[in-house]
Amino acid sequence: MRGRSNQNIYTNLNNQSAEQNLSYTLKPDVSGKHVRVIPLGGLEQIGMNITAFEYGNSIVVVDCGLAFPEDDMLGIDLVIPDVTYLKENLDRVKGFVITHGHEDHIGSLPYVLKDVNVPVYATKLTMGLIEHKLEEKGLLKSTKRKVMKPGQTVTLGDFRIEFIKTNHSIQDAVALAITCAAGTIVHTGDFKVDYTPVFGDAIDLQRFAELGKKGVLALMCDSTNAERKGFTASERTVGSTFDSIFSEHLNTRIIIATFASNVDRVQQIINSAYKYGRKVVLEGRSMVNVITTAAELGYLNIPEHTLIDLEEMKNYPDEQMVLITTGSQGESMAALSRMAANMHRKVMIKPGDTVIFSSNPIPGNEKAVSRVINELSMKGADVIFQDAHVSGHACQEEIKLIYSLVRPRYAIPVHGEYRHLKAQAKLAESLGISKDRIFILRSGDVLELGADSAAVSGHVQTGGILVDGLGVGDVGNVVLHDRQHLAEDGIMVIALTLGRYSRQLLAGPDIVSRGFVYVRESEDLLDEARSVVEDAVLGCLAGRGSDWNRIKGAIRDSLSDFLWKRTKRSPMILPVIMEVED
Amino acid sequence: MRGRSNQNIYTNLNNQSAEQNLSYTLKPDVSGKHVRVIPLGGLEQIGMNITAFEYGNSIVVVDCGLAFPEDDMLGIDLVIPDVTYLKENLDRVKGFVITHGHEDHIGSLPYVLKDVNVPVYATKLTMGLIEHKLEEKGLLKSTKRKVMKPGQTVTLGDFRIEFIKTNHSIQDAVALAITCAAGTIVHTGDFKVDYTPVFGDAIDLQRFAELGKKGVLALMCDSTNAERKGFTASERTVGSTFDSIFSEHLNTRIIIATFASNVDRVQQIINSAYKYGRKVVLEGRSMVNVITTAAELGYLNIPEHTLIDLEEMKNYPDEQMVLITTGSQGESMAALSRMAANMHRKVMIKPGDTVIFSSNPIPGNEKAVSRVINELSMKGADVIFQDAHVSGHACQEEIKLIYSLVRPRYAIPVHGEYRHLKAQAKLAESLGISKDRIFILRSGDVLELGADSAAVSGHVQTGGILVDGLGVGDVGNVVLHDRQHLAEDGIMVIALTLGRYSRQLLAGPDIVSRGFVYVRESEDLLDEARSVVEDAVLGCLAGRGSDWNRIKGAIRDSLSDFLWKRTKRSPMILPVIMEVED
Repeated sequence: MRGRSNQNIYTNLNNQSAEQNLSYTLKPDVSGKHVRVIPLGGLEQIGMNITAFEYGNSIVVVDCGLAFPEDDMLGIDLVIPDVTYLKENLDRVKGFVITHGHEDHIGSLPYVLKDVNVPVYATKLTMGLIEHKLEEKGLLKSTKRKVMKPGQTVTLGDFRIEFIKTNHSIQDAVALAITCAAGTIVHTGDFKVDYTPVFGDAIDLQRFAELGKKGVLALMCDSTNAERKGFTASERTVGSTFDSIFSEHLNTRIIIATFASNVDRVQQIINSAYKYGRKVVLEGRSMVNVITTAAELGYLNIPEHTLIDLEEMKNYPDEQMVLITTGSQGESMAALSRMAANMHRKVMIKPGDTVIFSSNPIPGNEKAVSRVINELSMKGADVIFQDAHVSGHACQEEIKLIYSLVRPRYAIPVHGEYRHLKAQAKLAESLGISKDRIFILRSGDVLELGADSAAVSGHVQTGGILVDGLGVGDVGNVVLHDRQHLAEDGIMVIALTLGRYSRQLLAGPDIVSRGFVYVRESEDLLDEARSVVEDAVLGCLAGRGSDWNRIKGAIRDSLSDFLWKRTKRSPMILPVIMEVED
Repeated sequence: MRGRSNQNIYTNLNNQSAEQNLSYTLKPDVSGKHVRVIPLGGLEQIGMNITAFEYGNSIVVVDCGLAFPEDDMLGIDLVIPDVTYLKENLDRVKGFVITHGHEDHIGSLPYVLKDVNVPVYATKLTMGLIEHKLEEKGLLKSTKRKVMKPGQTVTLGDFRIEFIKTNHSIQDAVALAITCAAGTIVHTGDFKVDYTPVFGDAIDLQRFAELGKKGVLALMCDSTNAERKGFTASERTVGSTFDSIFSEHLNTRIIIATFASNVDRVQQIINSAYKYGRKVVLEGRSMVNVITTAAELGYLNIPEHTLIDLEEMKNYPDEQMVLITTGSQGESMAALSRMAANMHRKVMIKPGDTVIFSSNPIPGNEKAVSRVINELSMKGADVIFQDAHVSGHACQEEIKLIYSLVRPRYAIPVHGEYRHLKAQAKLAESLGISKDRIFILRSGDVLELGADSAAVSGHVQTGGILVDGLGVGDVGNVVLHDRQHLAEDGIMVIALTLGRYSRQLLAGPDIVSRGFVYVRESEDLLDEARSVVEDAVLGCLAGRGSDWNRIKGAIRDSLSDFLWKRTKRSPMILPVIMEVED
């Protein structure tokens, strides 16, 4: 990884630049003509979706998600949005309105609610998943919550927010119609059009049409699959695939890895299992959590005696078992990966096992998934990784359909990387929306929309705050740079003790290295390094340059020169000088 | 990256295990009945292809490639094979026979030839690329080299090696027929079947058939695309794609990123450029190197005045320019990535530029490629990343074709991850080769093949040797573990000075941290940590446990407990104790 660019760190952590108008200069718009759309995250990276809508003295916030760390964010667990703008305008924030229960839409709530404690509005399953999170952090009692049904409307300050039924890879997803005196904005959330969903109703296309007929100011539409032609297949097609795989593997154990949150997928696996006389075991912490919540709330229909505990598995022959497990993304600590690596305490992969990946690798996870497939294959499992998944996002024809029903004045592509937003912008243009009415925003942009004008009028502070263990925001660019440096070439600590008055070298220099070379086989190199440092230190002490900074500088310069010449490596060099009375 | 499994490191570095017969116990087979196939790399990872063939007292080695480091091999530049087995049998090694000029087939030669200095046999372009490497390392004069033509045969000890024309994503690729008294083994190298290649002849299918008719003991066939149905399209189809893209973008600059080694691809870009009246600039060091070598050796046909220098670009309008550049895999230091990030000294991306990715992301590079696409799009470039590439590897129908021509007694799938080898094994079985005649080998396996028997009879030492800067093999598991640890949570150095006789604490404990927290904002935490350490040290000194190891242990235990409780992080803790006379 020598020479990997750290550029990404900067982009993620600092979306603001010197010439921008930062939040403290942004005053409420009191003209009554404009509604402001202020994305506080989600536009420079996948995840961390959070957008403020502002009219007069009312602010409502749609979603509050987290992002998973980029590869160069070493040691970081997750990234949450900088909500300084909300904190500075706390009295105007009326509530969070949540579109669905995925981590990139709800995951930061437990962090953000500590500072921005306003009511949360969501549909039943979404709220169930949020409550689970709040409970873990002890925030359940202090958070006002209201469960909404699709079709219902809530008034928040000067806004009316209507929840509209959509389809997605998790149940209970909604689009939002956000209305104020300046007009209506339709936000799709993540969605697809599924005419034959496994559970509940199809997307409420009629309501989109009705809103469009009345007049919609702006459409904020999911761009994730905007590069893909055609239509995303119905979730139900995966059920048929399961049936045919089950019918072709009557004599083996079946293990299926999928996303814990895809309740419909799990339902369909349970349906096939029941049909073919198999028992079902759930494995993996998040799988058990989500499915338990969904079942309690009535989103799953599980025939009696079908679901059994992992411990009971031994009572049934392989051909009567289905395991539904986490790990479809090759996550190293997930259940399937542990099975594949012989590290699972209760499930061993056996020759003849049929393992189905009911998922596609999320970009970045391809190699990890491939590693798990290789390990499963080496243990003799038959691995099926094709045709057992459909996307939860709208492809081009679905996006065009929504545009054609809603017929917005302005288009604001959301949810996706820049390339995906750009692809949706092209689709919008092809549908007759002129370029000056399409806005690809950056996080922090303040877009002011009115019937007769639309423009980015300012910027507020945004960015990603890194969470590492219990630390929120105590790891930034300096620490990440150090970790990167340490990861590349390790560290050399040079310790020495000086006499305070004599200015004599009383002990050391001692060299300790970690992550640099295998020490036992490089004793000569380290001995030479030690004498290089000693010469440099003695040189300083003999001359006039015996202040600490000068000595440290001399150590760094002499040692890094020496090591680069001999090894073409640049470990971090850390001089530690101690003084004792003498 | 918390909790990432390091398992992969172990697999790569230690393919041997205690109970295996290591090389020193392996004696030449003098029965004359068997030929041995001993893969020394390439089977547990993509790349690092190297296989020894052994009959009586003759050993020939096919290919000598390198592997690029896995994600968890922090700071490592490349990985080369452990060739202990060849070194121990140096007098029997007759030469290296190379199938084609890709890094994963030639990249380790400059390292391995230092110890195993035997002649190298390769076709003209392959040899040109090898010579470039040897020259860089000062090994050109000391290495015997013989350029071979497809159709020619060389005798190496008891072996005859025939070079057979194939097609691949680099010119001059060959398969090998490796014949000794025990029979003929056909090794395809990396290949595809291209009936209409851009340069030179199609694969010599007749020769494969002729060999099959005479009787082939074993087929070692490329498995890379064994999971893909159908036939890989001809390289020539990409030329038509270029023509149509050029015809649709008459008024913009065109920038095309592709693999430097794909000479035919570059030829086709030059053809389209010439046809549409554009000049061509090559950019990126490896692009210039490979294309210069290929042009000198006559593998490219460049119309006069078509190729110009980067400096001359300013003399032509955009619509008369094509840039062919490296960086199609999103490599951060490659030319295209630097252009996208505004870090290229001579080329700026402009709105309206058309950028074509003539490549697919290699697994693991998806996110990097996507990042470059996003950056290019943000600068207003029109990015085309579909339909401008074909694979260089055979799909299922081509693999079946080769099997059906060669009709081998034994099948040994090669080149690919385990899942790909397994997929080819299934194909071989579907063609009537029984399971007991199909061998999926591991690196180090000694497969003994004869007319009436075939079995893995032993194992030799193999593994990956890590290259970091100038160091070859001085970074192993311990160092990589330390780098991983440092990368996750950083380091805390605790320095203190003791009086040798008084056993008093004369200075410190001082705490210096890197990569742990942002120090200025965590002064309280570090102050507390310091006093925790001080208490532990003073406790040791007051009691009887004042030897260094005990003090270091007390520092580690007390500090790691404290830090885990407070931060849920575990930085590396490095106590440094100095003694002075007192």
